[in-house]
Amino acid sequence: MKKPIITLLTDFGTKDHYVASMKGVILSINPRCLLIDITHQVSPHDIREGAFILSNAYSHFPKGTIHLAVVDPGVGGARRPLLLVTQNYFFMGPDNGLFTMISRKERVDQIIALDKKKYHHPEVSTTFHGRDIFAPVAAHLSMGVKPNVLGHKIDSLFCLGFEGPFVKEGKLLGEIVHIDTFGNLVSNIDEGGHIRFIQGRPFVIRVGGEIIRGLKKGYWEGKKDEPIALFGSGGFLEISVKEGNAQKMLKMKRGDPIWISTKFQASSSK
Amino acid sequence: MKKPIITLLTDFGTKDHYVASMKGVILSINPRCLLIDITHQVSPHDIREGAFILSNAYSHFPKGTIHLAVVDPGVGGARRPLLLVTQNYFFMGPDNGLFTMISRKERVDQIIALDKKKYHHPEVSTTFHGRDIFAPVAAHLSMGVKPNVLGHKIDSLFCLGFEGPFVKEGKLLGEIVHIDTFGNLVSNIDEGGHIRFIQGRPFVIRVGGEIIRGLKKGYWEGKKDEPIALFGSGGFLEISVKEGNAQKMLKMKRGDPIWISTKFQASSSK
Amino acid sequence: MKKPIITLLTDFGTKDHYVASMKGVILSINPRCLLIDITHQVSPHDIREGAFILSNAYSHFPKGTIHLAVVDPGVGGARRPLLLVTQNYFFMGPDNGLFTMISRKERVDQIIALDKKKYHHPEVSTTFHGRDIFAPVAAHLSMGVKPNVLGHKIDSLFCLGFEGPFVKEGKLLGEIVHIDTFGNLVSNIDEGGHIRFIQGRPFVIRVGGEIIRGLKKGYWEGKKDEPIALFGSGGFLEISVKEGNAQKMLKMKRGDPIWISTKFQASSSK
Repeated sequence: MKKPIITLLTDFGTKDHYVASMKGVILSINPRCLLIDITHQVSPHDIREGAFILSNAYSHFPKGTIHLAVVDPGVGGARRPLLLVTQNYFFMGPDNGLFTMISRKERVDQIIALDKKKYHHPEVSTTFHGRDIFAPVAAHLSMGVKPNVLGHKIDSLFCLGFEGPFVKEGKLLGEIVHIDTFGNLVSNIDEGGHIRFIQGRPFVIRVGGEIIRGLKKGYWEGKKDEPIALFGSGGFLEISVKEGNAQKMLKMKRGDPIWISTKFQASSSK
Repeated sequence: MKKPIITLLTDFGTKDHYVASMKGVILSINPRCLLIDITHQVSPHDIREGAFILSNAYSHFPKGTIHLAVVDPGVGGARRPLLLVTQNYFFMGPDNGLFTMISRKERVDQIIALDKKKYHHPEVSTTFHGRDIFAPVAAHLSMGVKPNVLGHKIDSLFCLGFEGPFVKEGKLLGEIVHIDTFGNLVSNIDEGGHIRFIQGRPFVIRVGGEIIRGLKKGYWEGKKDEPIALFGSGGFLEISVKEGNAQKMLKMKRGDPIWISTKFQASSSK
Repeated sequence: MKKPIITLLTDFGTKDHYVASMKGVILSINPRCLLIDITHQVSPHDIREGAFILSNAYSHFPKGTIHLAVVDPGVGGARRPLLLVTQNYFFMGPDNGLFTMISRKERVDQIIALDKKKYHHPEVSTTFHGRDIFAPVAAHLSMGVKPNVLGHKIDSLFCLGFEGPFVKEGKLLGEIVHIDTFGNLVSNIDEGGHIRFIQGRPFVIRVGGEIIRGLKKGYWEGKKDEPIALFGSGGFLEISVKEGNAQKMLKMKRGDPIWISTKFQASSSK
């Protein structure tokens, strides 16, 4: 029989005992679980960043994987602890927008508010639901407890506004939504949106004061210290610098604009 | 048959090969072990910090778990390699104070000095007992070798002075013993001690030049950039800042004082 | 039946989804794999550092372990994806020098260029071969697919020049090849080379403006803030500072020189 997989994504870091406590709780209930870390380095309280990383990682896991995500600045407050049952996976975490991108990519079959205290830790703290609610409920789910036994069905979840790119004054306007370990700048412009916009016309990309012409296929292309544009492994337009760090070179931060223009000759004459 | 669990806590970091070497050694002896990292980010040589994190993490694991802890500035010197057999767990590591807090929370049934060379690596280095002594002994223990076969019984272990809070001039004086990933300041004042001290009277908390009135239930309470006090998930008084970082805001470091006073009207008139 | 072990070494960091994506892909093909991280903190694109860490970690794992190493600045370019079958292990990664040190320590029985697309992800990106080629091929290998089915045999691999220490003007000249978490400076001078050079004569070690006389056995020896020399757990000459950080104290970086001289009286009279 296959071992159930539970992945963990948090903003807890790896120095404190928080992540280990959650793993201990899970293994105390279901010692057969396979625990895989997605990351614990989400910036503290950064729901948007957690949502982005989760949405890029989840689909590579086997069907039936339980994805446990805790970026939870409102822990102990009014936000509900949730279980999302989708076509292929289970997602658990606070109802604060962490599953916004998931809910656009996966068919959501059920949303459960996790209020059956029987499956929580006997004493639930107001500061650590990862350990006291999410970990034990995930462990019980991994043992075959049915979602609708863990709580009651609800019909909506809290979603953050993740704006896609939009067309304005003849330009496709996007923004930097993630900066990775290598300093690569990942935008919210996907390959399909790009193709529909440019319709085969030549184009330039403008980002951080630079003008980039054309797309590369891989990081190895281009010259040293030259920013290049390519579609990365997640399918989004990304700015990279060979043997360098695009974030540092272009002094960019998340939320900064990036846009594509097909009228660059006209606009350069302005 | 359940898989034996071995947890690892070190100050080795995750960049070097040290942790992986220990895991490789364990799996070479007992490939059935389940290895769970508590942390490898203990500050270099910081026995006190290692002791704190271990004491907060260990009890969430299933009974019988082997907790392997190596923060070992005296490696190769006179300090003994130890195995503690407690009511519920096994603890292994150097006899340098790392188990001080454990020995106060768990009933210690046996203390074994790990001197049976048969269970060590054939050539023990003077610089890496984690790999050459603790890892192989933990693996043998996980296969069912009895504690008293791994070494000889001794009757004491080295303990650090972890001062609890104390009452002086009508105040309950504690200190900051840990600062977590979020910048929360964790003190050594536990809830029981607090209740016994205040005896239902109103009180103020003084920390880093701030006066905090009353306790909150969760991090979500209070206003942005306002320091709040609450009892955290480990049961200790903790200072936190909503959407902020208490360490940075109050410029605190470990060992800094925190105190509780019930005579704050008198003292404020000074 | 023993579970196959796959280790992972990358420069991907632990914040992004990259490592988790690889693990998800492996577990989707072979859910029985045991996945062990060596490190994901190799400095970005630093093949030399990756090669060093891998060469120190690999041999502690059980025979038959699959070591998957991805430090791959040329991903998607001309460098080949490789499988090395050695006497005891399997190594997979890009043919860019990452296996230089391995190929000197292990007998290499086969080198396979991984070009059988059947075992790759159906759509291979040009930016993430870790996920699209190496992870699926490693998973298939762990299920018993024969190396020569995964690609075709080739007869060479790309090696970096890792210069050993050499004798010049009566001195044994080496360099710092790694700096660990504790700030210890690890050189490329091994114990055998040292013994052959000094031939029982007294000697001094010169590094970063300091003169160190004699060797210590362990880190605990020497005085606070005094740099000492010893042979570390990997068998190489290493400079350490008790309760301190040799890198910071001596302001050293990788590549900086270290040398041993047996004519220190003559040279000190210069």
